[in-house]
Amino acid sequence: MSDLRRDPISGRWVIIAPERAGRPSEFQSVPVPEHSHLCPFCEGNEAETPGEVLAYRSPDSQPNQPGWYIRAVPNKFPALQSYGSLEEKRSGIFQQMTGVGCHEVIIESPRHLTSTSELSDKQVERLFCVYRDRLVDLSHDERLVYGLVFKNAGPPAGATLSHTHSQLLATPVLPFNVSEELASVRAFFDRHGGCLFCEMIQVELAGQHRIVEQSSNLIAFCPFAGRFPYETWILPKSHASHFEWQDDASLGQLACLVRRIICRMESVISQCAYNYLIHTAPFDTGQVEHYHWHIEIFPRLTKLAGFEWGTGYCVNPVPPEEAAKLLRNSHSE
Amino acid sequence: MSDLRRDPISGRWVIIAPERAGRPSEFQSVPVPEHSHLCPFCEGNEAETPGEVLAYRSPDSQPNQPGWYIRAVPNKFPALQSYGSLEEKRSGIFQQMTGVGCHEVIIESPRHLTSTSELSDKQVERLFCVYRDRLVDLSHDERLVYGLVFKNAGPPAGATLSHTHSQLLATPVLPFNVSEELASVRAFFDRHGGCLFCEMIQVELAGQHRIVEQSSNLIAFCPFAGRFPYETWILPKSHASHFEWQDDASLGQLACLVRRIICRMESVISQCAYNYLIHTAPFDTGQVEHYHWHIEIFPRLTKLAGFEWGTGYCVNPVPPEEAAKLLRNSHSE
Repeated sequence: MSDLRRDPISGRWVIIAPERAGRPSEFQSVPVPEHSHLCPFCEGNEAETPGEVLAYRSPDSQPNQPGWYIRAVPNKFPALQSYGSLEEKRSGIFQQMTGVGCHEVIIESPRHLTSTSELSDKQVERLFCVYRDRLVDLSHDERLVYGLVFKNAGPPAGATLSHTHSQLLATPVLPFNVSEELASVRAFFDRHGGCLFCEMIQVELAGQHRIVEQSSNLIAFCPFAGRFPYETWILPKSHASHFEWQDDASLGQLACLVRRIICRMESVISQCAYNYLIHTAPFDTGQVEHYHWHIEIFPRLTKLAGFEWGTGYCVNPVPPEEAAKLLRNSHSE
Repeated sequence: MSDLRRDPISGRWVIIAPERAGRPSEFQSVPVPEHSHLCPFCEGNEAETPGEVLAYRSPDSQPNQPGWYIRAVPNKFPALQSYGSLEEKRSGIFQQMTGVGCHEVIIESPRHLTSTSELSDKQVERLFCVYRDRLVDLSHDERLVYGLVFKNAGPPAGATLSHTHSQLLATPVLPFNVSEELASVRAFFDRHGGCLFCEMIQVELAGQHRIVEQSSNLIAFCPFAGRFPYETWILPKSHASHFEWQDDASLGQLACLVRRIICRMESVISQCAYNYLIHTAPFDTGQVEHYHWHIEIFPRLTKLAGFEWGTGYCVNPVPPEEAAKLLRNSHSE
């Protein structure tokens, strides 16, 4: 079982997860061929994954058999385990917690595609509906307080399998970055009586030079202090705290915008590895006035080196204003 | 010129450094051959780097000419610039600072070696004396408050040139990670009246199972909440806040221990990329009771993926107790 440990010096938590050591590392050996009997995520290889917790599939097909469009399954090498209870232990200066939670994989296509950008509009809409449906389902588990959807595409972004997939992590305590972000925007709300994200959207709309795309409901821009070259955030223009409260039509528009932004990144950067993260409010709250859901997408061109580990500062060689200009002028299909 | 920008949401600073985009990326094309006219760090190619700020060299040789053992030169693609003054600017929710500081490269050998472990004992002793001498020199610059020595070896660790080299960054404000660490150990000191690092050394000496090596003066162990597989910290057993206050004999012992630890990592992990960082107290202080200098060495086997960027937790698949056991039983030469 995993355990979470707190470094007494920095105060940071680390997940010690010996189960993860057994993960396949496809990219370190021979790449898996297209649509292969070797790829556990390809249609026909359903027995290679744990049983599905959700699938969108053709009406005449059976669970864990071919005929699906999208599948969500438990992660075979989870960083957190769904069994056991949350227990904290202290011993002198050391503090640790059992690694309880939920770690799922969402297989984005029955075909051996390698990027979300290769999905059709219809398929990427389904994918975002699966994100929502799994978050809503997990929010009913009383042990869990937060759900994080994320995607790793390409080895530099931490993917170990090339078949396009996303992941969902649900946790019994707020992850460090989430509670830090919530505290920061809460402090802004207390001082100024408004949502910091709403304020940021107004500033970007007024300035225009960091905007990549916008529609009546959504805005995509390169943030002022982006950590990575071409980092782009997508937000709803109107205040909304929970990603998972959207209807199918809104999710469809969002999904197509995410796909277009990834296409733009892939047209600017060859062999573009990337991550995206969906930031939403904690499960057990109503509409939160100071929090605004958003998606962060970032290509992985730079590496974290001694500089970043020593200082805590990311170094971004591409000013966000230039990045936005290049992305705006790139192909979105 | 670089600028530092603060993300209003997370509060984190980022360095926007367009000059860094021009860096060579040796590893993405053909590797540079051994001792080559193409490598800017090899003996004979001194004109390819900015002029040296310090060199240990044979008595009959001239500055910026062959005949050196170790050279320190300004970084040709600095993340921070040594000209200009520190200026802060605020505009609504956005805050930024000029990227002032000092960024040097320490070339560890005239020969085209690729790891600190390949240096002789004599040469690695010289290297650590150069670290000290450069830190002491920069501590006299009134604009600077902190000096960070770090090393990137291998592309996964962020190195762009293979010729073995270290870097030194000196800054006009405390880097985020340094001030966070100082605040944490200060809080411990205020509560318990002792140094947290000294306490940790006592715990590790009592338990023994995370120790890799120790001598009368130094201890090397895998920390309880290590972020990376095989992460190892080296500390002096007696309390001391400033790395750069050591004499040649102490530095010699330390340098040889660092070299042995890297040898151990390289014998356990094939093609081991690694970083190390020297954590010392800020320049402008006397002996600090709550801070204890130390070196962190970490192989780079895992990648930061959506999981880590979303949660803020590193996932380490090798429990530190197992890592220490493997390192203890490995070859140190």
